[in-house]
Amino acid sequence: MILSEYFEDFGRRDWETDNIQGTVSVALIGAGWFTREWALPGFERAEHTEPTVIVDVDAERAEGLADDHDMTALTPAEFHDGVAESEFDAVYVATPNATHLEYVESAAATGKDVLCEKPMETDAERATELVETAREADVSLMIAYRMHLDPVIRRSKELIEAGVIGEVVQVQGNMSHRMVAELDGNASDQWRLDPELAGGGAMMDIGIYPLNTTRFLLESDPVRVAAATGSTHEEFADVEEQVSVRATFGGDVPVLFTANHNAYHDSFLRVTGMDGQIIIDPAFFERDDRGLEIRLDGERHDVDVTQVHQLEEEFAYFADCLLAGREPEPDGEHGLVDMRAIEAIYESAETGETARIENTVS
Amino acid sequence: MILSEYFEDFGRRDWETDNIQGTVSVALIGAGWFTREWALPGFERAEHTEPTVIVDVDAERAEGLADDHDMTALTPAEFHDGVAESEFDAVYVATPNATHLEYVESAAATGKDVLCEKPMETDAERATELVETAREADVSLMIAYRMHLDPVIRRSKELIEAGVIGEVVQVQGNMSHRMVAELDGNASDQWRLDPELAGGGAMMDIGIYPLNTTRFLLESDPVRVAAATGSTHEEFADVEEQVSVRATFGGDVPVLFTANHNAYHDSFLRVTGMDGQIIIDPAFFERDDRGLEIRLDGERHDVDVTQVHQLEEEFAYFADCLLAGREPEPDGEHGLVDMRAIEAIYESAETGETARIENTVS
Repeated sequence: MILSEYFEDFGRRDWETDNIQGTVSVALIGAGWFTREWALPGFERAEHTEPTVIVDVDAERAEGLADDHDMTALTPAEFHDGVAESEFDAVYVATPNATHLEYVESAAATGKDVLCEKPMETDAERATELVETAREADVSLMIAYRMHLDPVIRRSKELIEAGVIGEVVQVQGNMSHRMVAELDGNASDQWRLDPELAGGGAMMDIGIYPLNTTRFLLESDPVRVAAATGSTHEEFADVEEQVSVRATFGGDVPVLFTANHNAYHDSFLRVTGMDGQIIIDPAFFERDDRGLEIRLDGERHDVDVTQVHQLEEEFAYFADCLLAGREPEPDGEHGLVDMRAIEAIYESAETGETARIENTVS
Repeated sequence: MILSEYFEDFGRRDWETDNIQGTVSVALIGAGWFTREWALPGFERAEHTEPTVIVDVDAERAEGLADDHDMTALTPAEFHDGVAESEFDAVYVATPNATHLEYVESAAATGKDVLCEKPMETDAERATELVETAREADVSLMIAYRMHLDPVIRRSKELIEAGVIGEVVQVQGNMSHRMVAELDGNASDQWRLDPELAGGGAMMDIGIYPLNTTRFLLESDPVRVAAATGSTHEEFADVEEQVSVRATFGGDVPVLFTANHNAYHDSFLRVTGMDGQIIIDPAFFERDDRGLEIRLDGERHDVDVTQVHQLEEEFAYFADCLLAGREPEPDGEHGLVDMRAIEAIYESAETGETARIENTVS
């Protein structure tokens, strides 16, 4: 088996529509660290997107960004009132989780398509409302799972589908960082420590990466979960500092992962088949170059990965879908499965019993 | 921090007694694949051990080995009757798990010290009886956890104890192989598929490696476990093909591991601290060179590992303890914690609930 065949033109955009025309202008909602460092540059880099509006609770911050990037700054109230709504086709929602729904409601009311950060909302009920809001308004809703658009993940998925590592029998993963230290100087981003705004801690914010990426790679969903959560440091008195999950995916595949807001900066996903392994390490942080190793027949192959700007890829895909008139794939229904899984994980951590996930089948 | 300080003289035997004199002569009980390929050469390589007797149910196999290696061959009945008991000081028990107790009883009856393969027996009750048998006869009992004597593990333990990776917050691991294919031609070793002889499947045989090695590295024991077991292929109708465990160790440290008798050959242990990581990969197979990577401050350090013959190290340690008149450290009580943890793992897999492990404290 010739691995190089799979990895020719590693960064290829297998999703791209030929000769696409036009530009999607976007209102960025929320001007926190991630928007400033990653999303705004991503929209500027992507060929068919243009950031035209910035909305933030901090008017000064919004205006500063608007001046520097030739955008219109809006307060949340102005946005909800429909001010400058002719200046954008779609919204990108990157505010604290608890406020996603209200922004999607206002966007939907004026017929704007939506790209919403994950986790979708603070719980499955509000996330369901969010999906219904978009559906009733007949606007597109994509959930911002950037890993789906990273060639490391897309090529890995192709390898798995081609049977290169055989039947997948187990997956392990982690995402961890020293959140408080790494976000030093970005105090406004500490809403992640507030359960009202975040809905939870490490599971909501970073545990969702190994969970969702495994779902995408295996095209399979978690059926049962057994989990524990914990906090041992003062900063994490109100949301869980760490979570550990043993999930059973469809076909009885065990998927074990951890997430930790107060551990060494690390992320990996290790997919084991009967005939080989795919190890993605680093895996999940937008700011770490991704690594890919394939193990077959006792040999380890370090793959020469094409590093992409993950947000550029994600936004280019979003625009491609809108301009070509098709629905983006990580949609609201897809995101809801994560929200239900997260609720089951919290339930299991509470009861000490295995929890089933609603609406999934083994 | 200078890693090289820790790794000078990597293979050093920090347990070795100066100017030790004498030889421990050993009866090897069980002449299966592992004894022939690893244990017998290990005893021949170790300085203060001498294999003098071989016991096996297959008389022809025992006699062939005895001829080739200048040993006395015994049938199990002869061994139990005390035949040739003057020819050995200690026994090494490497028979199917269900027969460990009877051999230890006979060895203890003639005052022989015991090195017993893990898992100690088929269940905690029989393992407890085994410990009591040795205690009542006042013979030494060491459980054959070869990882404890591997410098990769000893140096990693020193690093952890020195605080190099900070507080340990999570551990992940795996041990998997294609057992039936890899043991092809060694049909007599297929007792591992027989629940009467083995006591269980992947958990008993290989899951014990990530479990026990984590206990040794952290000097901490599992308190609660949530586990699932499964078999999807015909050969594993009677014992579990795979197991996945989310354990909580003392201090609320999550330890997640898998073991699989029918997956790609792999073993690793990934210890994550607040300030760094230790990744041992390959970790557990005696026939794979061990690998060690230390991650600190965003840098990955591949450590130049001194590869040892793990059985030589283990047996040299056993002899060193006996000749110096001290008790070997992985003793019967230590092994019993694994047996209780394994029972809790099977209980959790059965009930779907978190199971507590007897006699451990958080």
